[in-house]
Amino acid sequence: MNEMDHILFVVGTGPGNRGGLTADAARAIAASDVIVGYSVYNDLIRPHFPDKEYLTTPMRGEEKRCILALEAAAGGKRVSLISSGDAGVYGLAGLVLTLAQKFPQVAVKIVPGVTASSSGAALLGAPLVHDYASVSLSDALTPWEKIEKRLTLAAEADFVIVLYNPASRRRRDHLARAAEILLKVLPETRPCGLAHRIGRDGEAAEICTLADLPAKAADMFTTVFIGNSQTRVLGGRLVTPRGYAAEQQP
Amino acid sequence: MNEMDHILFVVGTGPGNRGGLTADAARAIAASDVIVGYSVYNDLIRPHFPDKEYLTTPMRGEEKRCILALEAAAGGKRVSLISSGDAGVYGLAGLVLTLAQKFPQVAVKIVPGVTASSSGAALLGAPLVHDYASVSLSDALTPWEKIEKRLTLAAEADFVIVLYNPASRRRRDHLARAAEILLKVLPETRPCGLAHRIGRDGEAAEICTLADLPAKAADMFTTVFIGNSQTRVLGGRLVTPRGYAAEQQP
Repeated sequence: MNEMDHILFVVGTGPGNRGGLTADAARAIAASDVIVGYSVYNDLIRPHFPDKEYLTTPMRGEEKRCILALEAAAGGKRVSLISSGDAGVYGLAGLVLTLAQKFPQVAVKIVPGVTASSSGAALLGAPLVHDYASVSLSDALTPWEKIEKRLTLAAEADFVIVLYNPASRRRRDHLARAAEILLKVLPETRPCGLAHRIGRDGEAAEICTLADLPAKAADMFTTVFIGNSQTRVLGGRLVTPRGYAAEQQP
Repeated sequence: MNEMDHILFVVGTGPGNRGGLTADAARAIAASDVIVGYSVYNDLIRPHFPDKEYLTTPMRGEEKRCILALEAAAGGKRVSLISSGDAGVYGLAGLVLTLAQKFPQVAVKIVPGVTASSSGAALLGAPLVHDYASVSLSDALTPWEKIEKRLTLAAEADFVIVLYNPASRRRRDHLARAAEILLKVLPETRPCGLAHRIGRDGEAAEICTLADLPAKAADMFTTVFIGNSQTRVLGGRLVTPRGYAAEQQP
């Protein structure tokens, strides 16, 4: 990265610990004067980059947060807008690029990170070795019927399924409702996993069956995995094989 | 990471350049005596970690490669088995954990990386901001009918779709066949993107419509993105909004 003004890095910081940052992400943050992020993300990064100006907006202020970052960059500061995981997966990368149409003088560079499907899978074993679908259970911006349809079709397609945002204070029962929908297509014995607080204090991996999933505790820092027809529990880990070779070789 | 014998790190090295490595991945490789990987992956890492013993097996020798790594670890060496991207997404993490059942003295630790869906999305813009399905077009271990069914259901579910392994020397027409299947469900105008050689010499982003996709050149270093019903091209980038809010607010 050379000397540039009017640049906005949109940085995925990975699970949250320093070890999960890519070298490019660390370099973008180090090169920035201002870090803009949700307060939880800022607090994860601040200890490693203490000499920055940190700006934030409340949780539902995503559009304002993007404009804050674009305005700071337009004003000549070097800025990193940060998301945990990958800013391009359920993060702010799309909203920034949309709003950036009004800031033609700002160059936006997306710096990818390790998303929770990858870091959660590593914690649980290797559930994502074959085709998978990623579904957010947040109905803040998506009608629940659409979420329900996606879950049903993903199960019918025998995708491994990753659930983001399985619950929040406002949506305590979404994981249970999703599990009930999946149980209409999938067997009760289907292996599942929950990755809690990946890369942070309280990190925990939990393996269960689909029948047990509705009763599991989850929050906005949990990522949930539902295996495909081939997924097995091996040595306490959730493992999906690379294909269907066993079926093809009788 | 403390002093440990009999440890095997399974490391996702990200797109391939040094900047895409996480700090944990770099630390695992630096702590290893032996690096085991497909020759293309070894060649990407070797310049940054020249003082290691590098072992490889030919392209279809994945099982042998895993056993090579497990045996070296069982013999007391510190070993990293590397994949580009994330070893847990279409990589060897699952096969290693399966084969590791015969090596109970070896502790296997999966170190996640930035997978091509994240790094390719960042190169193209922000196509993965909402729910998506990841499908490999390789039929080496999966019947083609299964791949076809997944593509159809993913399109019906309005997932953004990411295609891994869109073509190889043996499977030149798989991308065209996949596009034809998607065209039965999706409109010809649907925005698509191709990310070529992400993070390497020859890196290129290409945006087109679904109608144009069958004629596009792709190889084993290409990742392909098919937008959902909301995906747009904005300022030359592929952008999917965070939800369906516009539909809900007439």
